[in-house]
Amino acid sequence: MNDSKTIILAAGEGTRMRSQKPKVLHQVCGENILDYVIEVSKTSGISEIAVIVGFQAELVKESLPPQITTYFQKEQLGTGHAVLQALPFFEALKGNLVVLVGDAPLIQAETLTGLVRAHESGGYAVTVLTAEFDEPTGYGRMIKNRSSELLKIVEEKDANLVEKQIKEINSGMYCFDAQALVLALAQLKTDNVQGEYYLTDVIEILRKMGKTAGTFVTPDPEDIQAINSRVQLAEAEAVMRKRINHRLMDAGVTIIDPATTYVGARAIVGQDTVLYPGVILEGETEIGKDCVIGANCRLVDAKIGNKVSIQSSTILESRVDDYTNVGPYAYIRPGSQIGKHCKVGDFVEVKNSTMGDGAKASHLTYIGDGDVGENVNLGCGTVFVNYDGKNKYRTIVEKNAFVGCNTNLIAPVTVKEGAYIAAGSTITDDVPEDSLAIARARQVNKVGYLKK
Amino acid sequence: MNDSKTIILAAGEGTRMRSQKPKVLHQVCGENILDYVIEVSKTSGISEIAVIVGFQAELVKESLPPQITTYFQKEQLGTGHAVLQALPFFEALKGNLVVLVGDAPLIQAETLTGLVRAHESGGYAVTVLTAEFDEPTGYGRMIKNRSSELLKIVEEKDANLVEKQIKEINSGMYCFDAQALVLALAQLKTDNVQGEYYLTDVIEILRKMGKTAGTFVTPDPEDIQAINSRVQLAEAEAVMRKRINHRLMDAGVTIIDPATTYVGARAIVGQDTVLYPGVILEGETEIGKDCVIGANCRLVDAKIGNKVSIQSSTILESRVDDYTNVGPYAYIRPGSQIGKHCKVGDFVEVKNSTMGDGAKASHLTYIGDGDVGENVNLGCGTVFVNYDGKNKYRTIVEKNAFVGCNTNLIAPVTVKEGAYIAAGSTITDDVPEDSLAIARARQVNKVGYLKK
Amino acid sequence: MNDSKTIILAAGEGTRMRSQKPKVLHQVCGENILDYVIEVSKTSGISEIAVIVGFQAELVKESLPPQITTYFQKEQLGTGHAVLQALPFFEALKGNLVVLVGDAPLIQAETLTGLVRAHESGGYAVTVLTAEFDEPTGYGRMIKNRSSELLKIVEEKDANLVEKQIKEINSGMYCFDAQALVLALAQLKTDNVQGEYYLTDVIEILRKMGKTAGTFVTPDPEDIQAINSRVQLAEAEAVMRKRINHRLMDAGVTIIDPATTYVGARAIVGQDTVLYPGVILEGETEIGKDCVIGANCRLVDAKIGNKVSIQSSTILESRVDDYTNVGPYAYIRPGSQIGKHCKVGDFVEVKNSTMGDGAKASHLTYIGDGDVGENVNLGCGTVFVNYDGKNKYRTIVEKNAFVGCNTNLIAPVTVKEGAYIAAGSTITDDVPEDSLAIARARQVNKVGYLKK
Repeated sequence: MNDSKTIILAAGEGTRMRSQKPKVLHQVCGENILDYVIEVSKTSGISEIAVIVGFQAELVKESLPPQITTYFQKEQLGTGHAVLQALPFFEALKGNLVVLVGDAPLIQAETLTGLVRAHESGGYAVTVLTAEFDEPTGYGRMIKNRSSELLKIVEEKDANLVEKQIKEINSGMYCFDAQALVLALAQLKTDNVQGEYYLTDVIEILRKMGKTAGTFVTPDPEDIQAINSRVQLAEAEAVMRKRINHRLMDAGVTIIDPATTYVGARAIVGQDTVLYPGVILEGETEIGKDCVIGANCRLVDAKIGNKVSIQSSTILESRVDDYTNVGPYAYIRPGSQIGKHCKVGDFVEVKNSTMGDGAKASHLTYIGDGDVGENVNLGCGTVFVNYDGKNKYRTIVEKNAFVGCNTNLIAPVTVKEGAYIAAGSTITDDVPEDSLAIARARQVNKVGYLKK
Repeated sequence: MNDSKTIILAAGEGTRMRSQKPKVLHQVCGENILDYVIEVSKTSGISEIAVIVGFQAELVKESLPPQITTYFQKEQLGTGHAVLQALPFFEALKGNLVVLVGDAPLIQAETLTGLVRAHESGGYAVTVLTAEFDEPTGYGRMIKNRSSELLKIVEEKDANLVEKQIKEINSGMYCFDAQALVLALAQLKTDNVQGEYYLTDVIEILRKMGKTAGTFVTPDPEDIQAINSRVQLAEAEAVMRKRINHRLMDAGVTIIDPATTYVGARAIVGQDTVLYPGVILEGETEIGKDCVIGANCRLVDAKIGNKVSIQSSTILESRVDDYTNVGPYAYIRPGSQIGKHCKVGDFVEVKNSTMGDGAKASHLTYIGDGDVGENVNLGCGTVFVNYDGKNKYRTIVEKNAFVGCNTNLIAPVTVKEGAYIAAGSTITDDVPEDSLAIARARQVNKVGYLKK
Repeated sequence: MNDSKTIILAAGEGTRMRSQKPKVLHQVCGENILDYVIEVSKTSGISEIAVIVGFQAELVKESLPPQITTYFQKEQLGTGHAVLQALPFFEALKGNLVVLVGDAPLIQAETLTGLVRAHESGGYAVTVLTAEFDEPTGYGRMIKNRSSELLKIVEEKDANLVEKQIKEINSGMYCFDAQALVLALAQLKTDNVQGEYYLTDVIEILRKMGKTAGTFVTPDPEDIQAINSRVQLAEAEAVMRKRINHRLMDAGVTIIDPATTYVGARAIVGQDTVLYPGVILEGETEIGKDCVIGANCRLVDAKIGNKVSIQSSTILESRVDDYTNVGPYAYIRPGSQIGKHCKVGDFVEVKNSTMGDGAKASHLTYIGDGDVGENVNLGCGTVFVNYDGKNKYRTIVEKNAFVGCNTNLIAPVTVKEGAYIAAGSTITDDVPEDSLAIARARQVNKVGYLKK
């Protein structure tokens, strides 16, 4: 491949989205639409990328990784005008300038690579990425000569009856010879009804300059679908969801219902793991082998070991090691590390805490800012009292300790190794090793009281 | 539009539903099937409505709004017989009588309006609502002359080979000139195999009277689908779900997966709010702008402000104000009002209570029959003890109070402004302003007890 | 029907599954793939079944019911070789030998019965189960003479252009005259590129022996779909899900969204019960009439009465009787029996316990190893302290007792009939009938303490 750069058009307002935020910052499978386009350019080997921004330019710029150049298009005067804003980015480029659209996140690296390869092998000044649609109505049609060279692109409204039969349509994405584009852009005019600079006019300009134009038909028509409305956003999400899930299934993951399993683009799942319906995996979530991720679990940036079972639970930015059981209805919040063979049961919250191997919190427990040692058993209703209204403190429960039900551990406090706390106690002082701590009132029975 | 009235046929048993309740009282997207038909008549400007009842007539009548007239069809002797029961409703009507079927909830106002308009502009005595089906088998076919006038309707079993090719089929819905119908009904006979009065026979009777008949083809074939089985009920639900969700998306709501987001017909959702999969919105639920309604939330008659985030929770007949976070796994029961910037966290139930702005109940807490002031912090495990086995009482926690973990507040009781309750206390008496309340036993450590 | 036996081919590795476990032990709607095939043979009246095992033979054998014979195929030398391993199973059989494939779980009893009937009425030596596919590419094609007798099966790679047009394809399932097969197998050779014994070659061998072959086209093409990848596994799951749900709907169950309701093959659901989206019914679950099973409930081997309402809850191996309300967010674990008119509310766990009619645990409660009598009220935060770190003990709360909030019942302990426990108590000793038990510290208010 020659030296290549990519321009991504992302200046439009996207009024049909009816949104306060720019269209390209809406999300598909948990990632910004624009990020997919950037990522595909990089994956295809083109890492020098400029983004044309316009509507809510600051928001779009903030969303970009630092190495991306941006150019500001003040007025929306057409796609040719948009590309012109980035002239400094490519005027010295001896190679390909790829133009992508920031609202078409389904483009795949193989398609982009195919476009560039077709461009180079055809020796074209411009190669248009196209698709063949059974229902081409509304799209620009490719007008070719008998040698399959592209002559021009005719928009729907300008097409005659014969041209309307053409099924090869324009995606709005191109590979240009950068120097040829520089020359052609200088001749671009606004002599059309809308008074805009159309990038598609470049094709005829280039041909008048004696150069040739070609097309590359995308193998997958879904690749070129741009998002202009929330309905199309949902459709793109469904396509991306299907792609991600098929990739996982091909790698040995069982997905009971791929239509209703929501895995983010960056998630990793190991072989023979089963994902139940309604599972949501977001961010950099990694799941090992032979796990069961039960229905409706939501995992965000979670690292899960092997042979872990999770039911109906939420795990955020935490780690859960091998053979541990979580849920149903558990909530593990950021900064937690759960060891092996642990149990984090029903109605248990863990926050910014560690649990050693074999530790158990089976039900109705809050572990906040705590360090729980190996094989500790936390009885039902245990509360780590980490907050006094002003500050937060840590609680340490050393290994093999047993904390009775409905116990309050008022931090900062340490329960030493092997200690035993009687149920119903509020623990304010450290408990020494192998000691019994108790803090509760004696029972009084007022016999027959209720008969009186 | 002329004076118009509507008759809705809802007397049938619907045996294929295999149900103890009448077919028209089954629900689609949370509303009775029959209610959709009534609503569409009203929306189309026809508010004088009669419903023909028969099977479990009392149940159907109870379900109706008070201004709807009903007529009882004792025996099921055909659609003509059904309409005849309502003769007093339209015999003096100078205008249109629309006949709808109570088991076709997908009919839309534009379709009904189109039918009436076609009826009036065509000057017909009757206009049949029809659809064009690629697979017309099983439906009555429209037999027309060269002037596109309707001659008669031929049922499947009576159709010859040529007639079977006809793709325009009968929906069972009509617009009549009321006076013409009155005359025609008088001539209706039961000289058919089933011995029933067929409303379709009216067309030929009217033509013999020198009048003309026409058809209006529904723009959307789904509109005329009647529900005869639970499978068809589920299909209608899917169509209605799609329509509701597309309407929301067009208005600026993001729906990650419209196929699995269950929004009732009367719910309102604001711009840039995101609905995750499995969300169920029932009744008169209203959600503001920029909210996140996470997966599997169920909201019934809930009023949600702007920028509210709710995860995996259930909210019934309550209000949640701006910037408040709910869940995951929270349960807000009827009669609750949660202020702004509040937190109702995991495993928290709120029932018939108020929470002032900035109040927090982060985990494992029950707020029942309580009034919680601004900026109150309820520690983990707080229980509002509102029930003594006989009566329920209210608890008041005034603003800026701090309630320690695992505290019981035994109602009726008041915790005054700025008071502080030590963790593990059972509070039976009021706590004065800025006071510390404590009610717990002192801790005893039996050192080395477990080694003995 | 003649005497019949069935052989099921289940020796293959299924490399495209990318799994550590044999393909036939993957699950569809909660049951092993292979079990469906066995079950269909039995339902069709053929209960003498042999399974050919190979890859991970021990695992497959362990999964089988005791009355199933297995034969071990050491090397994978083709389908003919596989059948040969079971020669002792059928060499004396005067009747039909049905050959099924262990990875095609969608086969239905009516299809299998149809195959055998066609085989017998045609007087064939072999009858191939076939399907008609619009897209037959990749499948073996049926070559027939003008009398519709099957001449041979041509594999895709050997097919000429005319043969490739044939749409009737091989399912890999057959009905043989057992004795004819015995003779034919003796002549089977490996003179092909792969050096394998092909069962399809038997057809030509039989014809050379003067016998005839026929086909039976499956009425439902889905029936013959074999599972070779996780994507196909998910597709088969979707077909099975649809079949199960349609069967339930036809019997009078309302399923709001059949696409996302996951009912196991053995579950039973009563008339007029409503299943909401995301419901998962596993194992031998039975649900009565007029129940509401709300969204995302998971029931495993649960027995549910009539008019029960369950919301967002998990129930494992337990019984819940008529008119009881469960959830949202309740967890009923194995061995529990909940009576009539009970309430198991939010954030309540019940484990290995009984609850008498009218008993209530409304919120944040753990009932473990307990017997709760009729009309008992367990206050919010009640904990049955069943585990002392070494052993588990039972707690008995007799009828009409009232347990105050945040009470610990330290087992073994009995709360007698009509007793009343004050909120916040830790109960270590039995409470006599109609007595008040209290075990908590007195409240002290340090007035104005927070101002100092």
